[in-house]
Amino acid sequence: MPKAYVLLSGGIDSTTCLVQAIKDFDGLVCGVSFNYGQRHTKEIYHAQQVAKALDCAFIEKNISRLIGKGGLTNDSLVMPQVSYDDLPEGVSPTYVPFRNGTLLSGITSLASTDPEAVAVYFGAHADDAANWAYPDCTPEFVGAMANAIYVGTYHKIRLYTPLIFMNKAQVIVRGYDLGAPFKLTWSCYEGGELHCGTCPTCRSRREGFELAGIPDPTKYAGTRRNSYEQR
Amino acid sequence: MPKAYVLLSGGIDSTTCLVQAIKDFDGLVCGVSFNYGQRHTKEIYHAQQVAKALDCAFIEKNISRLIGKGGLTNDSLVMPQVSYDDLPEGVSPTYVPFRNGTLLSGITSLASTDPEAVAVYFGAHADDAANWAYPDCTPEFVGAMANAIYVGTYHKIRLYTPLIFMNKAQVIVRGYDLGAPFKLTWSCYEGGELHCGTCPTCRSRREGFELAGIPDPTKYAGTRRNSYEQR
Repeated sequence: MPKAYVLLSGGIDSTTCLVQAIKDFDGLVCGVSFNYGQRHTKEIYHAQQVAKALDCAFIEKNISRLIGKGGLTNDSLVMPQVSYDDLPEGVSPTYVPFRNGTLLSGITSLASTDPEAVAVYFGAHADDAANWAYPDCTPEFVGAMANAIYVGTYHKIRLYTPLIFMNKAQVIVRGYDLGAPFKLTWSCYEGGELHCGTCPTCRSRREGFELAGIPDPTKYAGTRRNSYEQR
Repeated sequence: MPKAYVLLSGGIDSTTCLVQAIKDFDGLVCGVSFNYGQRHTKEIYHAQQVAKALDCAFIEKNISRLIGKGGLTNDSLVMPQVSYDDLPEGVSPTYVPFRNGTLLSGITSLASTDPEAVAVYFGAHADDAANWAYPDCTPEFVGAMANAIYVGTYHKIRLYTPLIFMNKAQVIVRGYDLGAPFKLTWSCYEGGELHCGTCPTCRSRREGFELAGIPDPTKYAGTRRNSYEQR
């Protein structure tokens, strides 16, 4: 029976969160992926592969009719080709309406029915919160949700966000040290055959590995870069 | 275009919340009902009738696969036949796992995609919170959610809980004064032909009208009480 439920998108951050939870709770962990109508549902397959590689339970839920249309659920989104730092101020073009509140509520509902469960993990990190690009990844947001979750479940479930004050490179180092299977992960918002290499999250991924000084196992499309290495 | 979205279950509290929101936002209000797998889905029909009577927009969403099984979503629940005050301590037998966090997140996702919307209303009241029967109806919970919602939507949406410090009788007085169509509302958890009159929420409804000194338009089954009066 899992003690911790981890929001698992199949990317770098949630995979690092998963290995952290496995360490914290001796492997009694369940990964949970949500289909919320994102363009890149491909990430759910990767989440499942990550969970499998780490010998974790895995659950997929579909909430695509619940989440409002906007950002990554907007079919007409023109994907920005810049890094997060260079996005214009205001609502991020890839912001999905109150997505993380909804995902956290859904996973909490699930976890609170499990007699053994005491924790929910969420891999928000500091780069998400920078310039308020994603307000639902900020310490202010997760602090409020942590309170709501703890109070609202009769003090049963606590929210863990171990990456909240790390930048991407620091997350990668943490994940690497804990044996995260990064080669199985998926970040790209485009959901193509290969990572595009140019959308904000691909840029963050590439730069993160570079800054961390850790080999990037990713094949990016449209570039000559190909530093794929087996871990 | 609605400015306020109101969680509408079709009962006394949410109907009072709806008339309050209509007053606060000059009728620019949308009621939202969720099918979360509750035994008494009948309440959604009543919510729709209430919205119609008040000339409000109305939306129904199904999240029954998202909410965990427990309390009112548990088919094997034996309905307690006592008032809320007499329920045993601990997890309320009618508590649905983190339901209100999930409903609030869902309605916030919806509202935050509406350019005009600025408010979400939730009709939690003080009797719900008494003895921690429903922890997700407490001031502590709604305060935390209000923060999460405000921060998580780029300071666009605020959570309004105008009944949070009123008991049931006070809610009924407020609703009555604002013209709430109580005769169209539904409270009973059993979802039968008539209100059962003996489950916790029926008891609360009956006692509320008595204490408020306002005629109860409800027909209760299994009793000789029948004080139905047209409003």
